[in-house]
Amino acid sequence: MLAECGRTKVLCTVGVQDSVPNWMYNRHNGGWLTAEYSMLPNAGQPRKPRDGRTGRPLDGRTQEIQRLVGRALRCAIDLTMLPECTLWVDCDVLQADGGTRTTAINGAVVALYDALLYMEEQKQLPKWPLRGMVAAISVGLVNGEPLIDLDYQEDSSADADLNVICASNGKLIEVQGAAEKQPFALEQFQQMIALGQKACVQVDELQRKALGL
Amino acid sequence: MLAECGRTKVLCTVGVQDSVPNWMYNRHNGGWLTAEYSMLPNAGQPRKPRDGRTGRPLDGRTQEIQRLVGRALRCAIDLTMLPECTLWVDCDVLQADGGTRTTAINGAVVALYDALLYMEEQKQLPKWPLRGMVAAISVGLVNGEPLIDLDYQEDSSADADLNVICASNGKLIEVQGAAEKQPFALEQFQQMIALGQKACVQVDELQRKALGL
Amino acid sequence: MLAECGRTKVLCTVGVQDSVPNWMYNRHNGGWLTAEYSMLPNAGQPRKPRDGRTGRPLDGRTQEIQRLVGRALRCAIDLTMLPECTLWVDCDVLQADGGTRTTAINGAVVALYDALLYMEEQKQLPKWPLRGMVAAISVGLVNGEPLIDLDYQEDSSADADLNVICASNGKLIEVQGAAEKQPFALEQFQQMIALGQKACVQVDELQRKALGL
Amino acid sequence: MLAECGRTKVLCTVGVQDSVPNWMYNRHNGGWLTAEYSMLPNAGQPRKPRDGRTGRPLDGRTQEIQRLVGRALRCAIDLTMLPECTLWVDCDVLQADGGTRTTAINGAVVALYDALLYMEEQKQLPKWPLRGMVAAISVGLVNGEPLIDLDYQEDSSADADLNVICASNGKLIEVQGAAEKQPFALEQFQQMIALGQKACVQVDELQRKALGL
Amino acid sequence: MLAECGRTKVLCTVGVQDSVPNWMYNRHNGGWLTAEYSMLPNAGQPRKPRDGRTGRPLDGRTQEIQRLVGRALRCAIDLTMLPECTLWVDCDVLQADGGTRTTAINGAVVALYDALLYMEEQKQLPKWPLRGMVAAISVGLVNGEPLIDLDYQEDSSADADLNVICASNGKLIEVQGAAEKQPFALEQFQQMIALGQKACVQVDELQRKALGL
Amino acid sequence: MLAECGRTKVLCTVGVQDSVPNWMYNRHNGGWLTAEYSMLPNAGQPRKPRDGRTGRPLDGRTQEIQRLVGRALRCAIDLTMLPECTLWVDCDVLQADGGTRTTAINGAVVALYDALLYMEEQKQLPKWPLRGMVAAISVGLVNGEPLIDLDYQEDSSADADLNVICASNGKLIEVQGAAEKQPFALEQFQQMIALGQKACVQVDELQRKALGL
Repeated sequence: MLAECGRTKVLCTVGVQDSVPNWMYNRHNGGWLTAEYSMLPNAGQPRKPRDGRTGRPLDGRTQEIQRLVGRALRCAIDLTMLPECTLWVDCDVLQADGGTRTTAINGAVVALYDALLYMEEQKQLPKWPLRGMVAAISVGLVNGEPLIDLDYQEDSSADADLNVICASNGKLIEVQGAAEKQPFALEQFQQMIALGQKACVQVDELQRKALGL
Repeated sequence: MLAECGRTKVLCTVGVQDSVPNWMYNRHNGGWLTAEYSMLPNAGQPRKPRDGRTGRPLDGRTQEIQRLVGRALRCAIDLTMLPECTLWVDCDVLQADGGTRTTAINGAVVALYDALLYMEEQKQLPKWPLRGMVAAISVGLVNGEPLIDLDYQEDSSADADLNVICASNGKLIEVQGAAEKQPFALEQFQQMIALGQKACVQVDELQRKALGL
Repeated sequence: MLAECGRTKVLCTVGVQDSVPNWMYNRHNGGWLTAEYSMLPNAGQPRKPRDGRTGRPLDGRTQEIQRLVGRALRCAIDLTMLPECTLWVDCDVLQADGGTRTTAINGAVVALYDALLYMEEQKQLPKWPLRGMVAAISVGLVNGEPLIDLDYQEDSSADADLNVICASNGKLIEVQGAAEKQPFALEQFQQMIALGQKACVQVDELQRKALGL
Repeated sequence: MLAECGRTKVLCTVGVQDSVPNWMYNRHNGGWLTAEYSMLPNAGQPRKPRDGRTGRPLDGRTQEIQRLVGRALRCAIDLTMLPECTLWVDCDVLQADGGTRTTAINGAVVALYDALLYMEEQKQLPKWPLRGMVAAISVGLVNGEPLIDLDYQEDSSADADLNVICASNGKLIEVQGAAEKQPFALEQFQQMIALGQKACVQVDELQRKALGL
Repeated sequence: MLAECGRTKVLCTVGVQDSVPNWMYNRHNGGWLTAEYSMLPNAGQPRKPRDGRTGRPLDGRTQEIQRLVGRALRCAIDLTMLPECTLWVDCDVLQADGGTRTTAINGAVVALYDALLYMEEQKQLPKWPLRGMVAAISVGLVNGEPLIDLDYQEDSSADADLNVICASNGKLIEVQGAAEKQPFALEQFQQMIALGQKACVQVDELQRKALGL
Repeated sequence: MLAECGRTKVLCTVGVQDSVPNWMYNRHNGGWLTAEYSMLPNAGQPRKPRDGRTGRPLDGRTQEIQRLVGRALRCAIDLTMLPECTLWVDCDVLQADGGTRTTAINGAVVALYDALLYMEEQKQLPKWPLRGMVAAISVGLVNGEPLIDLDYQEDSSADADLNVICASNGKLIEVQGAAEKQPFALEQFQQMIALGQKACVQVDELQRKALGL
């Protein structure tokens, strides 16, 4: 699944491993889902060194994003409906121009749907485990106005940055908003989140279309 | 500065280093502030291995928290008013019972104020760089009701978890909210954030009292 | 540049960095070229953990391949004709089905040509530094018969495995051949290398076609 | 247990883990005790980077000290009297002004006593395993005179540095002495060790008082 | 076994471990052989830092060589004839002056023979597992002429560098040849490989003499 | 320099690097000496994994020993008499049977002498910097009797273990003694140290003989 959003391109794949993490071992309580996120070194300008090639600990931003992707997807799936397995969701950014984390989530849930369809065909799923889709959008505050899906240029000049993640029914899964320069007022925050929710509905439609639903 | 909140105890200290990170080198544009967060191994139950002793990359949760602390404090300070230096803010959790990240922020800003006072006495500050204080609070949704400052027990059973970080004027610096089990409605989110803002005002007063302001 | 060979797909990109490695510093003797190779975790079956995420040293096979790619390309370029810069050649395997190292080389030299064209347009090249193209092919010995470009299935059952890397004039840049099960006779080795050389000529044509030459 | 000696402050805690190291596994021969030592980054001047944050191997001095603490405590306890468990002794230096290793040992044995008392109350100990206390003291040679418990200033100018670790009966558990500048005579060494032994008796009394014995 | 070739000295030893790697576990299909290669820091000029002391990933050249040694020896031994064990072949370069990888192979196979003799005496081998010896030689192209066993000086000025590894019957196990400066013609390559094969026969005789065969 | 003591064999070499550590940079106060110690994996039984190959931090015992070797040699040399350089002393244990750390020191000082002679011939030394030799010996308490230079078997059954390091004039450089099982009396400690001092005089003679002094 190659998710594109503007010039941003994220390759999202799901691999199934026939075992669960150590801490779930022998609990017979379904499966687990984990996500990894990485940027190819030439995805943005200038080239960024590869994770883990220099012996330094993994970059904090990368960890934050892959934890976010994992939490969002786990909120959409009933893990107890899975067989004893780990779903590995890999999001690799081939080209980056803002919004890589939301594009990763949007592509990953489609890839997850595909992988679950395949598992169902293989009779590996006792019951359909997905509760619904997950849509994510970034919202920025540029010159006092909320804007969705900023590219890298716009993002760099935004006064605040918000990521909204919603379920198919429009309810909130996660909200992360931060002032970039000055603290911002509650009213602006309200506008941004409302705009994000509306945009998530449109993303949800695009995802269903991509899946032929 | 030992910050306590319920049974949670976080030792917050600020060290001054006479140089700036590489990427700021030779820009003559003030100083930098960076934060590190760590839990002593016996701070919680059961004992947790120390960071970096096992050769594995630094834990994602730890990185998330120290990045959050750093962003929050940098939002309160005008870095261009600092001499060429790096302020190292260290938050070490001696005892953990919920809310360690918000307690860390609340203690860190007090330690920062103290450190800046000392620098001012030493004539190292051309101008007072702090724009104001920073207060943080965690809000949980327990049985449909928003509650502030949950201990570890309450936190584990919460339906949603929100951290609110505010400036002294009550404006928002950062908001992070996530559903723990089910997606939640916008209205609940609104209540939680309003409660968080109100609590931050009280934290702000406690901080000023601690500093004798 | 996406190089495909059978079901194998390798994304090859070239990034330019405005500095040279430490050991070349201050020698004013042109530029450097270095290559990195990596497989996306879901490129093959089963999923392979990402390099450097587990804290273990980088996999020996990966290092061998990226060193091979770097040597092959450096043999085709006159580094003293470059400005003081490092060309980073990144080969990322999106899908793997045998022959990833030769596909990486074949795609990388095309991406390198493209990058040099761009540098020439930007007036960054005093003189065209590429001496010619580089073509690579894998040859296997299956049931006593030499075969080119084996897929993963064929490769697993081959008795010997040979990689031939040639310049545009058909001369040899590198030859690596190993018995997989039993030592093999010189005559078989001769046949394999001759077959490889012939195939490289065809690869060379495909590369020129891709570049519109 | 917060052990203080002059301006040096070391937080000593003991955690019990319900398993033994791999090499003791399935021997049914009691438990194990291991110690870890660390300095908070701002414990001394200037700030010291945290262990393991930079990807470099653990500092040799830190390893030496934690091995010393572990050996000293294991000499005081009959490990075969423990249930199958590992006692983790953590010594974290909050503030450092000379003598951190001896202060760590003195505090750790008190924390160990406390932890064993708790285990006894919980009926986890078939028999009281502690053979006695352990006391440690540092002795320096300053201007030819032996002095105990040097602070950081005195320590830096000492000609020799000796650590003496004794059991409650005054017998020696470990002695480590090194010339800082010039080799020293046996007679001086004798004086220093005798002084150390006497001081250990006083430390032993303070420990018993702290424990209400 | 101390293998010497010119001024190059490599200490080759074989250790037996009573277990197999994880991926062979419970297959009851004989044993495994693995090789490690390392240079003492002062083996060459200037001193080279030790592997793994600096926290950086293991050097690519070192990995390439130890993989080569392992492959060559595994080609000479029938692993299914071994008991469930791992043979660790360690090649440590005490002094380096060109040809360390071929000297390592030549010494390692002698040490392996010795270790297997010892295992046979201890009645640990159901059947003699060695199919024959392995001989390796490096061939360089200097001023258009093929030369064997170059020292470091000659090697640095060679136009091409080839390693030939043969079985006792003169058949090829592995061939690795690379142009150092300019691509080279097939005919030159043929001459070099023929010369290498002949030299391997002489190495084979020296090995047998060393073993008293 | 290959130092042998019983069956223990340690290869000691000294390499000269034309720079000083960062913390000495630009002080123009002579040179530095640093030591590294390592065991070849098959030096003892069973085979021990190589340092740094597994990604784990460097073994505490190894660090302790190399710090000890460095301190002992730095006590014998006037570093301000060196040109701006670092002397790297490498002690690699080829075969281990007790007393590796003392054998390493005894061999290292001879190798150091040799290296300084060479530097003097090269006119690199303004003045001879060595104050004298350094001799080291291990003393054990076996069945209540002090014994020098225990092999591995004796060492394993000793009640106490002591290392004595002396200057040529018999004065003490470092003493490290530890009870292995039960605390020991001061009188026994005195006997052991006296025996160690006497043995060091003999070692000193052997060293001078090896150097032809």
